[in-house]
Amino acid sequence: MALVVQKYGGSSVGDAEKIKHVARRIIDTQNAGNQVCVVVSAMGDTTDELLDLANQVSTNPEGRELDMLLTAGERISMALLSMAINDLGAKSLSFTGSQAGIITDEVHGNARIAEVTPDRVAEALDGGNIAIVAGFQGFNRDSKDITTLGRGGSDTTAVALAAALNADVCEIYSDVDGVYTADPRVVPTAQKLDVIDVESMLELAAAGAKILHIRAVEFARRHKVDLRVRSTFSNDPGTIVLSDEDGVNQMEESVVSGVATDKSQAKITVIGIPDIPGKAAAVFTTVAEAGANIDMIVQNTPTGSDVTDAVSDITFTLPKGDLKKVLDALAQNRGVLSYRELESDEQIGKLSVVGAGMRTHSGVSAILFRALAEAGINVEMISTSEIRISVITSLDQVDDAARAVHKAFDLDGDNEAIVYAGTGR
Amino acid sequence: MALVVQKYGGSSVGDAEKIKHVARRIIDTQNAGNQVCVVVSAMGDTTDELLDLANQVSTNPEGRELDMLLTAGERISMALLSMAINDLGAKSLSFTGSQAGIITDEVHGNARIAEVTPDRVAEALDGGNIAIVAGFQGFNRDSKDITTLGRGGSDTTAVALAAALNADVCEIYSDVDGVYTADPRVVPTAQKLDVIDVESMLELAAAGAKILHIRAVEFARRHKVDLRVRSTFSNDPGTIVLSDEDGVNQMEESVVSGVATDKSQAKITVIGIPDIPGKAAAVFTTVAEAGANIDMIVQNTPTGSDVTDAVSDITFTLPKGDLKKVLDALAQNRGVLSYRELESDEQIGKLSVVGAGMRTHSGVSAILFRALAEAGINVEMISTSEIRISVITSLDQVDDAARAVHKAFDLDGDNEAIVYAGTGR
Repeated sequence: MALVVQKYGGSSVGDAEKIKHVARRIIDTQNAGNQVCVVVSAMGDTTDELLDLANQVSTNPEGRELDMLLTAGERISMALLSMAINDLGAKSLSFTGSQAGIITDEVHGNARIAEVTPDRVAEALDGGNIAIVAGFQGFNRDSKDITTLGRGGSDTTAVALAAALNADVCEIYSDVDGVYTADPRVVPTAQKLDVIDVESMLELAAAGAKILHIRAVEFARRHKVDLRVRSTFSNDPGTIVLSDEDGVNQMEESVVSGVATDKSQAKITVIGIPDIPGKAAAVFTTVAEAGANIDMIVQNTPTGSDVTDAVSDITFTLPKGDLKKVLDALAQNRGVLSYRELESDEQIGKLSVVGAGMRTHSGVSAILFRALAEAGINVEMISTSEIRISVITSLDQVDDAARAVHKAFDLDGDNEAIVYAGTGR
Repeated sequence: MALVVQKYGGSSVGDAEKIKHVARRIIDTQNAGNQVCVVVSAMGDTTDELLDLANQVSTNPEGRELDMLLTAGERISMALLSMAINDLGAKSLSFTGSQAGIITDEVHGNARIAEVTPDRVAEALDGGNIAIVAGFQGFNRDSKDITTLGRGGSDTTAVALAAALNADVCEIYSDVDGVYTADPRVVPTAQKLDVIDVESMLELAAAGAKILHIRAVEFARRHKVDLRVRSTFSNDPGTIVLSDEDGVNQMEESVVSGVATDKSQAKITVIGIPDIPGKAAAVFTTVAEAGANIDMIVQNTPTGSDVTDAVSDITFTLPKGDLKKVLDALAQNRGVLSYRELESDEQIGKLSVVGAGMRTHSGVSAILFRALAEAGINVEMISTSEIRISVITSLDQVDDAARAVHKAFDLDGDNEAIVYAGTGR
């Protein structure tokens, strides 16, 4: 008997009818001879509605109370799903994150899972029950307080439970029927992948593909959990994200798995920084202390009449939402940092090409840059990893860039893909 | 420094503005030099909305999952109230029933409090925090599951916490500004009482007055907790419910504290039961096994030509909602019970006159029955306790009866009272 962990996102349990649909799907999985543990997000817009209430009563809700508030969302969806399953004649028990043994650190709103002790879940499964677990939430032992895992939290709960329960597979359900070679809203000829290696999935997630959250993929990679990305509303087998290197090696590997775009970034250029040791570090210390995560960094060659007054420019990208606070922090520290001026630009887009095949195939960057040049797209920044090349373009050119690059790497399918939306938390 | 426990019902925290109003009220209480522990119900119609969802996904939701679902309601209100208080500059921490140490038995949906261990609440209060506790909910240690306390649960939570924390007073806030001599919607000349003894309050609650739930009053009586019933939306000092017998003895005692009516009852008459030992007991065993609580019972004198075939009639009242299942149970057991026929009547009303003064004053029943007779009201059943007389009338006469009796006991005030509504849970 196999053990299957399934995760259903908020759009999959958005109302009573959808909950009943999901309940039938879960029972079918059990009837096929599996033990089933289900992780569920809050219904539809519940989280946003609760956040809205929080903002109505407080200008700056503290994390502890916000976590207490938001975790009500999964409590509702998990209890309803459990009732619906019981009503259809199967046995089911629901568990909060705390009851399911999701132990985290103390960081409210963005807690990390420290340990998973799913004794009650395992006991419920052994008793023939379908176990329903609240996604997104955990418990800190020291403070005895409830925590939430932040964005992508329910995916991470599912993967962590799959690892702790030694599950055979972890299925991530949403309204998307798999991982595509590109966002079909941008590239209509994008194709669904049957299989992708976890490293490439990680790079795609990091590059802005919203199908799976990077933390969940990282957890799956580290704990060797195979994922299956599927739609709640179709029987398509979806996409397998393989964690096993042997499995990946057996794949008929394409050079490029997919193309991702990200329009959520802004860039800052710090102009005229003295080219002396420690100045660049001081810039990034300032940024880190402001609480922003930076993504790409480019430092140009020093310019200046002689070595002593050489100056350089540092450009980096960061989430648009962090732009103002980082600019403020840099301005406040101008005296120490000794730069000449600051520039920022929110009108940028990031295009990434990802594929495990890049490790062994040469010429990928040549194809990429030729395609961009032929499409008349100007590249402002470049960064690479072993299996990814990312470029920054202007915001209004990034979609054209994605279509050109998708075609250049022979990823175009014959049919238009179905359009997918985000996966919620 | 006094310790005040305050309980706010669902209508007091129905939206963000009301939550902020309540937050200011709580902070005022702290600023007046008190430690404040607040018990809060779910916002407005939240519980009904959650129940509605449950009924959409299940024909018969199991208690464990229903409790998990419904407890989300207080989780939301308590976190929002805590945020609102923090936003106004005071310090606050919220606690679930489980975190506040409300330990109950295992009866989902109607759990009894077994023990209160409010260590975290006490610690929060000692640290200068306002402690917000979820009403209506608890935790069972054996099953490790969340429970709810059933109707009146939040009042009971407040009284239990007040007892465990050795609070100086327990204030029950709702949209009602105190305990009245009668329901002002029925008797417009009803007056607010400044003080009432807990025994009379208990009888009034049992007789259908909705201002405080009987379980909470019973808890207050047993643990000697003084209650103050007040309105969230006025500064009226409300009504004190005194638990202390000395205090009660010092009261200038009126013979009758109040008149209550109850239109929620139905009555069943079991006609022609053989007058042999055990037959009446068998009737009430059948009723109990059907899960109904009966209220008043009258058994008439046996009739019959000789002793061996003497038969009697038994009439009892019960909640209208239990009528059908009890009639079904009695019909199924007709063979054993050997009655001749069953009659039932939903068109009844109960009128009760309550007052601690009845213990020492004679003539109360004379005044009562004279008033009813003069108003032309027919009395169908009578039951009495030491400090209460209740009569059953027809449903369409019970309001007239209440006005006549209220006047006969000199309870009428000079002004029309403000109308009050129910207090939620």
